Formats: sequence, C-alpha cells, structure tokens
Amino acid sequence: MERVIRFCMIGAGRAGKVHLNTVVNNIPRGKVVAVVDSIPDALTSAADDFGVEGRFTSLEEALEKSQFDAVVITTPTPTHKPLAVLAAENKKHVFLEKPMALNIADCDAIIAAVRMNEVFLQLGFMRRFDPEFATAAQRIQAGEIGRPMMIKSLTHGPGLPPPWARDLTTSNGMLAEVNSHDWDTVRWLMGSDLERVYTEVANFKGAANQIDTPNFYDNVLVNIRFESGGLGSISGVCPCGYGYDARVEIVGEQGIMQIGELEGQAVVVCTDRNQGLITPIYRTWPERFAWGYIREMQHFVQSILQDIPPKVGGEEGRWAVAGVLAGNRSWLEERPVTLREVLKTA
Amino acid sequence: MERVIRFCMIGAGRAGKVHLNTVVNNIPRGKVVAVVDSIPDALTSAADDFGVEGRFTSLEEALEKSQFDAVVITTPTPTHKPLAVLAAENKKHVFLEKPMALNIADCDAIIAAVRMNEVFLQLGFMRRFDPEFATAAQRIQAGEIGRPMMIKSLTHGPGLPPPWARDLTTSNGMLAEVNSHDWDTVRWLMGSDLERVYTEVANFKGAANQIDTPNFYDNVLVNIRFESGGLGSISGVCPCGYGYDARVEIVGEQGIMQIGELEGQAVVVCTDRNQGLITPIYRTWPERFAWGYIREMQHFVQSILQDIPPKVGGEEGRWAVAGVLAGNRSWLEERPVTLREVLKTA
Amino acid sequence: MERVIRFCMIGAGRAGKVHLNTVVNNIPRGKVVAVVDSIPDALTSAADDFGVEGRFTSLEEALEKSQFDAVVITTPTPTHKPLAVLAAENKKHVFLEKPMALNIADCDAIIAAVRMNEVFLQLGFMRRFDPEFATAAQRIQAGEIGRPMMIKSLTHGPGLPPPWARDLTTSNGMLAEVNSHDWDTVRWLMGSDLERVYTEVANFKGAANQIDTPNFYDNVLVNIRFESGGLGSISGVCPCGYGYDARVEIVGEQGIMQIGELEGQAVVVCTDRNQGLITPIYRTWPERFAWGYIREMQHFVQSILQDIPPKVGGEEGRWAVAGVLAGNRSWLEERPVTLREVLKTA
Amino acid sequence: MERVIRFCMIGAGRAGKVHLNTVVNNIPRGKVVAVVDSIPDALTSAADDFGVEGRFTSLEEALEKSQFDAVVITTPTPTHKPLAVLAAENKKHVFLEKPMALNIADCDAIIAAVRMNEVFLQLGFMRRFDPEFATAAQRIQAGEIGRPMMIKSLTHGPGLPPPWARDLTTSNGMLAEVNSHDWDTVRWLMGSDLERVYTEVANFKGAANQIDTPNFYDNVLVNIRFESGGLGSISGVCPCGYGYDARVEIVGEQGIMQIGELEGQAVVVCTDRNQGLITPIYRTWPERFAWGYIREMQHFVQSILQDIPPKVGGEEGRWAVAGVLAGNRSWLEERPVTLREVLKTA
Repeated sequence: MERVIRFCMIGAGRAGKVHLNTVVNNIPRGKVVAVVDSIPDALTSAADDFGVEGRFTSLEEALEKSQFDAVVITTPTPTHKPLAVLAAENKKHVFLEKPMALNIADCDAIIAAVRMNEVFLQLGFMRRFDPEFATAAQRIQAGEIGRPMMIKSLTHGPGLPPPWARDLTTSNGMLAEVNSHDWDTVRWLMGSDLERVYTEVANFKGAANQIDTPNFYDNVLVNIRFESGGLGSISGVCPCGYGYDARVEIVGEQGIMQIGELEGQAVVVCTDRNQGLITPIYRTWPERFAWGYIREMQHFVQSILQDIPPKVGGEEGRWAVAGVLAGNRSWLEERPVTLREVLKTA
Repeated sequence: MERVIRFCMIGAGRAGKVHLNTVVNNIPRGKVVAVVDSIPDALTSAADDFGVEGRFTSLEEALEKSQFDAVVITTPTPTHKPLAVLAAENKKHVFLEKPMALNIADCDAIIAAVRMNEVFLQLGFMRRFDPEFATAAQRIQAGEIGRPMMIKSLTHGPGLPPPWARDLTTSNGMLAEVNSHDWDTVRWLMGSDLERVYTEVANFKGAANQIDTPNFYDNVLVNIRFESGGLGSISGVCPCGYGYDARVEIVGEQGIMQIGELEGQAVVVCTDRNQGLITPIYRTWPERFAWGYIREMQHFVQSILQDIPPKVGGEEGRWAVAGVLAGNRSWLEERPVTLREVLKTA
Repeated sequence: MERVIRFCMIGAGRAGKVHLNTVVNNIPRGKVVAVVDSIPDALTSAADDFGVEGRFTSLEEALEKSQFDAVVITTPTPTHKPLAVLAAENKKHVFLEKPMALNIADCDAIIAAVRMNEVFLQLGFMRRFDPEFATAAQRIQAGEIGRPMMIKSLTHGPGLPPPWARDLTTSNGMLAEVNSHDWDTVRWLMGSDLERVYTEVANFKGAANQIDTPNFYDNVLVNIRFESGGLGSISGVCPCGYGYDARVEIVGEQGIMQIGELEGQAVVVCTDRNQGLITPIYRTWPERFAWGYIREMQHFVQSILQDIPPKVGGEEGRWAVAGVLAGNRSWLEERPVTLREVLKTA
Repeated sequence: MERVIRFCMIGAGRAGKVHLNTVVNNIPRGKVVAVVDSIPDALTSAADDFGVEGRFTSLEEALEKSQFDAVVITTPTPTHKPLAVLAAENKKHVFLEKPMALNIADCDAIIAAVRMNEVFLQLGFMRRFDPEFATAAQRIQAGEIGRPMMIKSLTHGPGLPPPWARDLTTSNGMLAEVNSHDWDTVRWLMGSDLERVYTEVANFKGAANQIDTPNFYDNVLVNIRFESGGLGSISGVCPCGYGYDARVEIVGEQGIMQIGELEGQAVVVCTDRNQGLITPIYRTWPERFAWGYIREMQHFVQSILQDIPPKVGGEEGRWAVAGVLAGNRSWLEERPVTLREVLKTA
C-alpha cells in the first residue's frame, strides 16, 4: 500500500477550506484526518463539507486524540508562532500560511523550532507554484531578459479584510495581510534582497465603510531599492471591488516580462457595440491561483514522502515580514527605511 | 507652387462623405472642387459640411462647369459603369468604390474605357492600405508563414443594408455589398486565384426586420478552393449588431497569422467583477479602417502626381465580382460552382 | 472507508497515459488497478511509470484476473466496438475515447450493449469539461448572444497522425481523428443537429512527408448547415507545426462569442523591438485541456459513485461519427451531403 | 481662399522632423514656410526632405526674412525660454516641445511673454491628443471608475538620450527628457496637483555604455502623493532596448482602467510552438503616437484659426517641470520632497 500523508488542518476559515478542499479532492497521496477550529460552527461546517471525522477545538486536543504527519496552519497571524512551534515540537511537518508572523523574533522562534525538531516548514507562497509565475522565474534565472533592473508587483483584492487584519497592532495591516505575496515575489524574481523602502498610503473608502481603526488605509504604494541596485514597487488596493488582481511586470537589461494578466477565462463576448467586448476577470484568489494551491500542496506532500526540504520555507517568510515592518515604519515616519534597521531591531 | 489634385466627388452618401472628409482634412495635396449627387439635400448637406463650392446634380453638369483631375465614385453599384466610363472618356482619373460592377461585362467595359483613355483606375479596397493588412501581406509574401494553405476572412457589419443593397437583382446582395473586401483579401493574401466556391446562407432576422426581399439572407458562409490547392472561407453577417468586425486568419506550411482583432482601442476597464473587463470594439468601418481610407487616397493622389499606376485596379475589382457571382450561383443551385463557369458566361 | 472506483486502463499509448496520469495523480476517488496493452513494452513502461501492478495483454485476461469497476478505452478506433461491448457485457462502466467507432452500426452496437447491461458510457469529449467551453455553453444556453446563427470551430494539431489514423479505410482520416471534438462542439453549442455538409480538402505536406496513403489530406474545411437554419464551419490542419490550436467563434442574433485563444500562459516577453512580443502558445492537447481531462474523469467517477448517467454518452458519439461520414462523402463526391443520407445508410 | 497657418519650424532634429512631416503631409490648413537650425547640414537635410524654401540658422533671421504665423520649437530645453519669448514678442503663436524649461522661473517668463503679447502657447503633450489617452480621460472625468485613487504611468524608451539630455546640469536628466509626459499625464488623469514625491534611481548600463556623466541613471521610479490624497508612480527606463513603451494603469473607487498596451499592430504570428506567438511592439514614439502628433497639430491650427486658446498650455508645462525638480531633489537628498518646496524656491 502506498504511503499517504495524514493532515490536521488548523483553521476552518476561507484559506483553511481552500487547503482542505485541495487535499481532499486533488491530492491522492494526502488525507485529512483532523480539522481544528476554536469556533464550533466553523469547525462543524468545514468538517461536514469535506467528510472529515476528526474535529477538535485546539491543536493540543488534536495532538492527543488523533494521528497525523503534518499540519496546515491558516489561523490569524498572531497565533502562527505558538501553533507552529507546538506542531514542530510534536514532530509534525508544518505548512504555514502567510504572513509568517507579526515580527522577526517570532519568525526566528518558528525557524528554530522546526530546525531543532527536524521537521519541514513550508510557507504558503502559492505564487511560487503558479505555472505562470514559476515559468517566469525560470526564464528570468536563465537570463532571458538579462539582469533584472525594475519590478512592479501588485495585489488588489475585492473584499474588505476583517477588523484584526486591518489593524496595525494585530496584523501589521494590508501590507502584511494583502501584500505578503508581493514581498516574496519581488525578492524571488529580482534575485536580490531588499535594501530600503519608501511607502505612501491612502484612505479613500474607510469613512464610507465606517472604519475607525487607527491608521487604516486601503491603498498602499511602496518604492523599493534592492541590494542589487535594482528598483521595485508593490501596490495594494483593498477592497478594490473590481476583482482579484495579481500581476508582475519586470524589466531587465535585455527586455521586459509581464506575468499574469487582467483577463480571466478566454471567453470573450460582445453584444453591444456601444459597450464593447466583455472578458471575465478573476473574481477571487482561489480562482486565480487554482493551480498554485494544488501544486504547493503536491510539493509539500512530495517533500515529506521523499524527505527533501520544501522549496519555500522560513527564510522566505522572514524576509517578507521584514519588508512589511520596514514598509510600515516608512509611512508612519514619512521617510525611507532600510531593511537593516528592521532586522537589527529584531 | 506645388501641384494639387482637384477632385470631383460623385455620391454624397456615407462612403462619399468618408472620402470627402479624407481629402479635405487629411490630404494636403488633394482639393475637392465639386460634389455631385442627384439628391439635392444630400448634396447641399455634404458640400456645406466640407465647404465645397462646386455642387452638381450630375457628372455631366460637373464636367461642363468645373475643372478637375479625378473623380471618386461612391454611388450605388448599378451606376458604376456609366459613371466610370464617362469620367474616363473625359480624361479624369477614376477612384471607384467596391463592388466594381454587377457583372463581368461591366467590369470589362470600365477596364477598357480607362485603358483607352489612358487614365488611372483605383478600386476602393482600402484594406490593402490598412497598416495591419499591408504588413501582413508583405510578411506572407516574404515567406514568413510558408506557402499559404488555408485562409478565413470575415466581415460582420452592424447595420441593415439599404433595400437595393440586399436585393440580388439590384446589387448581388450581401456577398457583394458587405463581403467585397473579403473576396479581394483572400485572393491577395493567398497569392492565388479562386477555383471554386460553395455557399450556404441563412435568414435569421429578416422576418423581425419585415424584409420581404426575395432571397434575402443575413448570414453567409462560403467555402473556397484556390487554384493553388489552398482552402478558404468567407463569412458575412449583416446586420450583426455587435460592431464592425473584419478579421483574417491564415495558416501556411510554416505557421499561422492573425490579422486584426476584435478589440478596438486599448482602454480596458473593469468596474464589476461579476461582469468582467470591458474593451471597446470597433463600432463602424470608417473607425476600423481610418488609416486605410487615408492611405488609399494618399496613394491615389501620389499615383497621379508621379504618373505611376495605382496598385489596386480593375483586375482586382473584376475578380471580386467573379467571386460574388459564383458564390451566389452556388447557394441558389445548391452545388459547388467554379469561377471558370462565371467568367465563361461573361 | 470511502468507496473508490477501480479502473482498468485499456491502451497505453499517448491518450492512455494522459488518463492514467489523471486517475493516479488527480482523482483521489479513483484507483488504477490494471493496464491492458497488446504491446509488451508499452504496457510495462506505462505501468511502471504510474506504479500499477495489474498488467495484461488483453481485456479478456484482465477481466479474468483482476477486479475493477470501469474501463477507459484509448485503443485505435476499429477496436472500440469489440472492447466496449465486452466490457459492458462484463458489467464494467465504459469511458470511451473519441471517435466512438468507424460507422453508425458500431455506434449502435455499443449503445445497445451498455443499455442492456445497465452500465454507464461516457465519451471522451473533454472539451465539454474545459472550464472555458463549459462556461461558454452555459452562457449561450442562457441566451446571452441570442439564437446561434453561425459557428466556426477549429482543431489544428502539431504532429503527423500515425499511418492508421490518416488512412480512410482504417480510421475515416483526419476529420475523425483530429476533428472529432469539433463535430461534437458545433452541435452542442449551436443547440441543433446538423443537416448537410460540404467539404474541401488539400494536401500540402504529404509529398514532403513521403506519405503515399491514398486520399491523404492535411487541410480540411467543412461548411455546415444546421437543422436550425444556422451555418458553421470546421477546419482541420494536421500537422500544422505551430502548436495545438482549438478555438471556437460563434455569432448569435444578439452578439458574438470567442472561446479559447491562441495565447497560452500569460507570460509575455519582449527582448527585441524588431521581433516584438513573445507569448507562449499551447504546445500539445494535454496542456491545452489539462482541466478538461481532470474534470471529465471526475465527472465519470462521480457519475458512478452517485449512480447518475454521465452527461456525454453514446448519442453524442454517434452524431460525431455521422458528421465525419457525411464530411468524407462530400469531398469524395464533390457535392453537399446530408446527414440523413449517412444515417439512412446505417 | 481658405486661411492657412504659416509655420516656422525651429529645430530640425528628430522631434522637429516629426512635426515638419505632420504639417506638410497631414495638415491641409497648415503650411511650413521656414525651417531654422543652427547646424547647416541638419537644416538643409530637413528642408530638402520636405521641400521647404525658407531656411535660416536663427530665429532672428527667420523673423527678418520670412512671414509666418506660428513657430514650433523643438530645440534643446535650455533654448526654450529665449526662443519662445522672442517668438511671442514678435506676435507668433508658439508650439513648444516638452519639457517647457529647466526651471520654474523660465516657465514663468514664457507664460508672461505669451500673455503680454496675446499669442497662444501650446505644449507638446501629444498624449493628451492620443485617441486612447483622450478617451480614457473623458471616461475618468465622467466618473466611470469613480474617484481616482492610484495611478501608474511609465515611459520606457529604446535609445540612449544624447549627452546634454542625460546631464542634470543641462537638462534635468531622464525624469525631464523621457518622463515629461508622465508628469503631465498623472496630474491630468488623477484630476489633482501633486503634493510630494520620493524617487529612487539606478544605473545599470552606464558603465557598459561608457557614460561618465555625473549622476547618470537609466532607471527611475517615483512614488507620488497627490493633493487629493491619491497615490501614483512614474517609471522611466532608458535605454530599454525592447521598444517604445508608454502605458498607464489607474484604479478608482469603482474600478480599474488600463490605457495603452504592450502590443502594437494586431498581426500575430506563430511559426514555432517552442517559441510561441509573436506580436509587434511599438518600436518608436512617432509610431506609438502617430495620431497624437497629428491631432495636437490639428488642434493648434484650429485654435489659431478659431481664436480659441489651446487646451494644453503653460500651466501644464510648469507643473511638469515642478515635478521633475522635486523628483530630482528627492533622490539626490534621499528623502521625500514636496512640490511646495520646489515652487517656493522659484
């Protein structure tokens, strides 16, 4: 009989259910044996939907009563460190959603725990497994556009984040919750660590949405200088309403590359010449990154089965957190901030 | 002082005004000195709009009272032969809108008249002057996609043609009035004369539009075999409502080429993720072929100024008429029809 | 324990391995227990690649020595009837690759066998499960572009078919082997059976490829009239070299719809302004229809698990075969041929 | 006889010849009577190419010996003020290429001179007359995407600027010479003046191009905060090699709009499935903005003929210069710089 990786899914929210669905319906070598959520309704609903028998309100309970090889953590960011450390100490491999943590110290604690316990840690940077992003990265590394000079990465999302995810004190705000992937993407595709950042933010819809979170913003634009000398920008708009939008444009010494596009499905319709052509847009992130979610989980399962460390781990998560912290400090202090300042603090 | 070509515009309908506007506003080396139309209101309106002083209700009158070098004929097809022949006999260069004539004999009469009187004849196949079509033709002729094997050309137009233009007895119907350009395009791009055609037609909207013209159709699809052995299709839909649509796809031994696209201006908007992206479509033919109309007229003026025959003349017009006649006979007799049959009849 | 559908894969060629890979790697509720191929090397290679233990050189042997619920038949067309009938008689559900059979009588025999034995039959028309085609069909049926008037469907494939697949006597040629999907697609999307067809073929590359198969052609263009009065075309080019190309364009009374596009991955690069932008094209059919292959197999498995007949069965396969037969007769006899003629013969 | 505007073209370099060609070949109501250039060869070559008789080595000489209504100034930036002022004082209308001047004081001097002499001043911001940019502006102003929140504008150009145009002391460098249009575009489309900017620059190709200009850079990325609260970025890459690239993306409260695209002509070719599809890119700015150059000159001529001030004048030119000055100060001083600082200095 073939070996199958048994999963405990920690968190039954939106991201949790995406991964739950993936393992159940797309990964023959994976099996979900337990779901954990502290909210009973969410727990029951998710477990029922996917026919999972093991249902627990804490990881501690799951560890005690169930047998599994790996956890998938999709709970709010502040819980990442304790959960990941506890899982690692119990010799479970850890798949951890982004952002890795609220600060560098927590990142370091997680990295130390998985290293000491000799388990694997994979960060949920699914863009690295999207066929378009992955192909693009290979082609850039092969030199197709020459040495990267300038990159622009954007994530615009349709829905207002939940209160905890837009409050700087509980989440580091949109730069962390919406733009985590961009921080990882620009570093990956530019092939360079970040040197300094400058951030501007804007609050357009907060009043209309009756948001009184201090420091709330719904638009952010970060200017980056890389250690390589290259330049970059990250933009975030959330809620943007018009769809889920994640694209990159990168210019190298020899040319330009665009990754992703505004168009979704290739079904183009025109019924009114005064209106014009209509093409679907990606409505949501699970739709845009359907393959990314499947392939990152295949990669995690194969990494465990073949005992080879996964490609995207703690180091990548930590750099993304550092970018967020520098980015936030920049707009709060209205000046460019180096990554070194942030990493030194830690 | 530079020589300027003086024009008499015969026909003040839609096509007439497109050319009138072009000469007046875009061709410094051309000057409109006369407009001819048998309908007084149309005549006055067009001449007023473009500040033309010479206004006549017949070509005969214009010839008598005005001085000009060339005519632009945009009147209904049955008038093409008498007008073109009269103009040629009076030593005027002739720019003649498509379709050239209703039958091969008329085409031959026009060709003979311009030859005998040593004037130039240019057919209004503006697609030959569209930057995209022209570039495509050059690249095909240079061998970029290898020997052409299969071509598809379409013209779908938004508005219902006027009664004379959809009646087989006065106009040869849609294959002539809407698809004239396609007949020329497929022969030009395939680099081969046509051998035989098979046509199917359909009438979907005639009843709703209360059309009782015998043999009316609003959809037509022609299958073509070329003398080169290549294959092709021409499709026409009119009225199609959704916009003005003229595209070509051609496959050669070494590759494929697409000419034109459904999208118009590159202004893409999304305001509703459930609807998707909206891109303008070309609404009308003057909009789609804005450059084609300017460049064909520049070519005509330059041909006269430099005394070099224009690139698209009677031969091209005659082949397009032959295609139309074979295409019509095919669907009326429900069988494939060779071009030879049609040309022999003539 | 959840019920899992056990599969015997009959045929270890290219299509066979695509389905084998799908069931093994993408369908948690399916399990391959046997592979059948009469060529020992092909059998071993496929079974090794996907870790299947049951290996047999005939369906008879597999039936005797292995336990399974369903077969997937991907062997050459002439074998479809005997294999499908034998499987049905042994109460196995049948997933049958296109084309269904060489003639109407064989289609009828297969339909009778599955009916009598109360098993399911699903035809391998994966385009019905492609997200773009499926969405398009729903939107057309919902009336978005009005009553369908004209459809164009094309399949251009990169590689030369094997000898049996280009010989009319063993396979019905390219119209069957390459364009089977188009026959199903146009009927499905137009919502109408076909009335008559007219076909032109061309042979451009046969000599260069040293093909002496009688009646060989590498280009085909079919003109169709539907019972609804609508028009259509199917084009095939094989080998076309430039990529795998499967697109549909459909015009309805209210508008136009394009399904699929020439572009593959949204990774656009420009490194030379004299060359221009480069975008990937789909290289192969498994790549173009990656989701289609997964979703049709999910559908088959779910149909069996839930005991609901699959959506695409014998009737659809039979109509596609009828189209092929009429299409072939047309170009051989150089005349339009009705589907009724072909169905009556049967 | 219709009134025709007589032009004196000052500057026979690349931009000068673009305007010369436009007036001669596309503007029937304009006539070039004089060309001025201090370099005899350039003067003769341009005048010969377009058949202009009046040839002068200075504006003073042209004013003395020729009769004209308007000048088009395309000489290097430092000459703009003296030439524009001299022309205005001689009651000539002024069409002035961007950037308007090297500093705010010079802008003010030009504005004062045209005002005092009651002549018109139009700045060469041809993007305002590009059909796509112009349509986009109208649609944004009509509220289609809601209140503008974030804009990104880019200009990447193929060729290395001449030495004077990359030296901060003689030209304000790339932000002025390459990105002038972006400064105007973002202000126009956002409907707001700029508040502060932060700039990063990079020098990737300077060494390879043996450039020893102090402060040379070939990549620049500016972060902008608008007075409206909106955010923006401007990017410049020059030389970028891959083509001429000018695009804008703008997000409003209700949606997103993209203006322009990487693709040029709609002629798509694929001859190699391993390479993919090839689409032309715009090679040069005269090609990309062909309509913009014609329409801005039509607008200038019509403004004079109808005695209505042109739409884009000194105020727009001055704001673009202010942006450049703030942008430069930002990267030199490594801090965000407000426009107020720059305007106050003036």
